[in-house]
Amino acid sequence: MSLSNNTIERICRIYGYLEYLEKNNIEYASSKEFAGIVGTTDYSVRKDISSLGLTGFSRRGYAVKLLKDQLGEKLKLSRTIKTCIVGLGKLGTAILDYESFRDDGFNMVAGFDSSINKIERIHTPIEVFPVGQLEDIVKQRSIELGIIAVPPVAAQDIADKLIKGGVKGILNFSPVRIAVPEEIVLHNMDFTAALRFVAARF
Amino acid sequence: MSLSNNTIERICRIYGYLEYLEKNNIEYASSKEFAGIVGTTDYSVRKDISSLGLTGFSRRGYAVKLLKDQLGEKLKLSRTIKTCIVGLGKLGTAILDYESFRDDGFNMVAGFDSSINKIERIHTPIEVFPVGQLEDIVKQRSIELGIIAVPPVAAQDIADKLIKGGVKGILNFSPVRIAVPEEIVLHNMDFTAALRFVAARF
Repeated sequence: MSLSNNTIERICRIYGYLEYLEKNNIEYASSKEFAGIVGTTDYSVRKDISSLGLTGFSRRGYAVKLLKDQLGEKLKLSRTIKTCIVGLGKLGTAILDYESFRDDGFNMVAGFDSSINKIERIHTPIEVFPVGQLEDIVKQRSIELGIIAVPPVAAQDIADKLIKGGVKGILNFSPVRIAVPEEIVLHNMDFTAALRFVAARF
Repeated sequence: MSLSNNTIERICRIYGYLEYLEKNNIEYASSKEFAGIVGTTDYSVRKDISSLGLTGFSRRGYAVKLLKDQLGEKLKLSRTIKTCIVGLGKLGTAILDYESFRDDGFNMVAGFDSSINKIERIHTPIEVFPVGQLEDIVKQRSIELGIIAVPPVAAQDIADKLIKGGVKGILNFSPVRIAVPEEIVLHNMDFTAALRFVAARF
């Protein structure tokens, strides 16, 4: 499927909105609503949806459940993805606590930290390990996605270990640029870029 | 300036990359590098930059410092934005510690929490206040941008108070949808959408 990253990103946001609508028993939604969610025009949204070859549009709008299921299938969002998080400081544990993940298809199967002390003290229902076991655990548990929440200086080393262990993608919360091979999907949560994105539109 | 949100978002990311290059004394960069950073084509990047009416392109590529200054001016990114954060739990304090903000033009002038206990215990160089003072402090200090890191149930109420106080924009880290008037700029840091954006490209 040759969708642009921008299209995929918009579809992922729309998918989250459809889930929200479904939970609230709302049956139909308009491309205008989706456009508001992703910050684009309704024309772009309709183009994104039709580029996936999807129908499901009626005079009442898009059928929420149908469209959600179709988008989920097209982007393979409906399967469960084994995920781990590296770095259990404030940010890492905040991400672990982030309630949305739980039912959203991301199965957090392991956490890692370099501090044995922290591993012993931490209260979390997921299993935690010293970072020395990162590569092995990722291999053993077939973890596909790694979240990096370590200090900047350690981020590249952690990314290398995740990749050696076999992850297919990385979500990087560390405010540093990391290099990955072309076949690895990398996305940076760039907090500064997000603040600027708000401020630039004042 | 009638730039699309997508263009503004890409430019903000490119701006951050230019800062990084400048800090590392790199003088020239190519549209291909920018494309890698924002996940688009170099054609799109050149179109984004030229849509701002910018030049600065030579055979050696874009001149890093010149382009950064130009983009900063066009998007008004070079001025300092008074910012506050509401919710000083794990995520909120992690955001406060996030090192990128410090020199990036966001002046964190206040923090707020509903727990007096937490306000007394917290170690941070910024001034912290009980959330009851939110609207007043935002007004008094002319805070323009509010970061929401409170539990989902409180997010809408906090957004309303920030807006009454006079902020122009909100960066929402809470995994819930909040409603704001049309003139307020809202951006959601949607962690689940980010994870999906990675997984959909495996």
